[in-house]
Amino acid sequence: MATMEQKTNHKFELASRPVGMARRENWKYAEAPVPSPADGEFLVKIVYISLDPAMRGWMNEGRSYVPPVQIGDVMRALALGRVIESKNPKFAVGDYVTGAFGVQEYAVSNGAMVNKVPNIGIPLPVFLGTLGMTGMTAYFGLLEVGKPKAGDTVVVSGAAGATGGVVGQIAKIKGCRTVGIAGGAAKCEYIVKQLGYDVAIDYKSEDVRKALQTACPKGIDVFFDNVGGEILDAALAQLAMRARVVICGAISQYNNTTPISGPANYLALLVYRARMQGMVVFDYAARYGEAARELGQWYAQGRLKSREDIVAGLEKFPEALLMLFHGKNHGKLILKIA
Amino acid sequence: MATMEQKTNHKFELASRPVGMARRENWKYAEAPVPSPADGEFLVKIVYISLDPAMRGWMNEGRSYVPPVQIGDVMRALALGRVIESKNPKFAVGDYVTGAFGVQEYAVSNGAMVNKVPNIGIPLPVFLGTLGMTGMTAYFGLLEVGKPKAGDTVVVSGAAGATGGVVGQIAKIKGCRTVGIAGGAAKCEYIVKQLGYDVAIDYKSEDVRKALQTACPKGIDVFFDNVGGEILDAALAQLAMRARVVICGAISQYNNTTPISGPANYLALLVYRARMQGMVVFDYAARYGEAARELGQWYAQGRLKSREDIVAGLEKFPEALLMLFHGKNHGKLILKIA
Repeated sequence: MATMEQKTNHKFELASRPVGMARRENWKYAEAPVPSPADGEFLVKIVYISLDPAMRGWMNEGRSYVPPVQIGDVMRALALGRVIESKNPKFAVGDYVTGAFGVQEYAVSNGAMVNKVPNIGIPLPVFLGTLGMTGMTAYFGLLEVGKPKAGDTVVVSGAAGATGGVVGQIAKIKGCRTVGIAGGAAKCEYIVKQLGYDVAIDYKSEDVRKALQTACPKGIDVFFDNVGGEILDAALAQLAMRARVVICGAISQYNNTTPISGPANYLALLVYRARMQGMVVFDYAARYGEAARELGQWYAQGRLKSREDIVAGLEKFPEALLMLFHGKNHGKLILKIA
Repeated sequence: MATMEQKTNHKFELASRPVGMARRENWKYAEAPVPSPADGEFLVKIVYISLDPAMRGWMNEGRSYVPPVQIGDVMRALALGRVIESKNPKFAVGDYVTGAFGVQEYAVSNGAMVNKVPNIGIPLPVFLGTLGMTGMTAYFGLLEVGKPKAGDTVVVSGAAGATGGVVGQIAKIKGCRTVGIAGGAAKCEYIVKQLGYDVAIDYKSEDVRKALQTACPKGIDVFFDNVGGEILDAALAQLAMRARVVICGAISQYNNTTPISGPANYLALLVYRARMQGMVVFDYAARYGEAARELGQWYAQGRLKSREDIVAGLEKFPEALLMLFHGKNHGKLILKIA
């Protein structure tokens, strides 16, 4: 396919490690010829790129749950695209696939950790959100780490965010009472009216600690934390006996230029004999199929709603990513490639 | 027993709530006639009083795992004494018993939460330490919350303290590698030579974080924390995958006049998919017998060593208690009543 070789792949490469918020100059907007797949590989034309708070962590040097992106490498990102050339018998031209394809227009893959997107009439971006890694994170984090029982009070921070929105809905499906913490009246209205949260707490206008006392008179059985910082402390102060605190993320802390603020109320774990546990969705890779089936079923039944916030244009990547840290996105933030 | 009624009971009553370290003026050294037991009760002449870091917490107002000691009440304390008068058929004059008898010379009890001390030739103070609540705390905290497996690396803070000393010995019995953190060369020598710790780290002269990297090249599987603060943070930075952090206490934080310093490295829980969980020994009351049998057996076999640091004189209580927070005690700190 001679024409392909003449095409150009635009991409964002990591140029430097950010201090505080990532800025455009931390990446190099580069171009190179579209690569050709070798035997066993295939070429993907990327259509949607998932923007996730975790991406900020991947830019840092040092040991974490995945190796850092190296300077000069394409910025890591989950993405969805279409196979346009294949030398791998398991992937055919025309297949839609998701994988860690990076912030670029084209990617070559050997199929490892790549999933096919079923053609069942569901909009493609949903497979990067509610029915993708975001949904998996919510599913396994809540059910396997949080272990909610029917009747439990489940509190979720970042409740209008991509993961938090799914967590609250699964908790309702499982018979829990749900309290979501979000920023601003619009998000609070959204999580109650659209996602079915029983109570919304607006951290921008309310004293979260007092609001949790009112909303959770019997204490918090499961706290699913995407945020960290003061909101984590407020939740620890209101735990129920034998509560479970799921540490999924800490978006309030990712851009710190000073040391992370640890939970001053951590001795609540002792007082309430509670458990705080971290989770990384990759650990559940062997069970993604199970989660995808159940999430897909709930989605088809209308019990699981999905909302995507789509920004168009690869070049908008640096500014789009920052929307997450300023709470500007409304639902799963996705970059659409032309 | 008319003579008894004329005797005087000396006691420490809580007079005010301390800010920072407790001071003598936070208690009133009071006297009153020795009380008489009613039907179903018995009178205990206290011989030994257990001094525990938790006592500082009991002096604070506010919700915790036990109600605070009220102003004017006898200061709460676990103690060991001899029954000298009884109107309860289950307790005979001459029985030695342990219970929450308070910081005083005589106590009346109805037998609730009181245990008899077996007459098997073991020195009485051991039943307030290694074979008492301290030993139970170590036993259930390590085995039920820490869940060590043979070959695991178990790190203990406050390793020369009453609880930490027992934790390390149980971990060795269970086939673990043990690393103890203690203050000063004498304590470090003690925990290695007497208690069998594989490695001692002297937090007063070593960089704990670096020392843990050296001592635990494969990471920490179980961290049993009695201390909190910087030592907890240092341990979090060196966790192994799926580590368990047992929050038993935080002696470094109990006398804070500023907010508690939370663990800035708590996101290590996410990176290492680790669990941090609080424990309170009272939750295992139904299984004390099981623990007492096993601990007693190890003690009899010489596999579990016990060391008590005994201060004589009820009146020395306020100053003796402070020894705990200055790390001045060497082994289980006990107040001997004349």
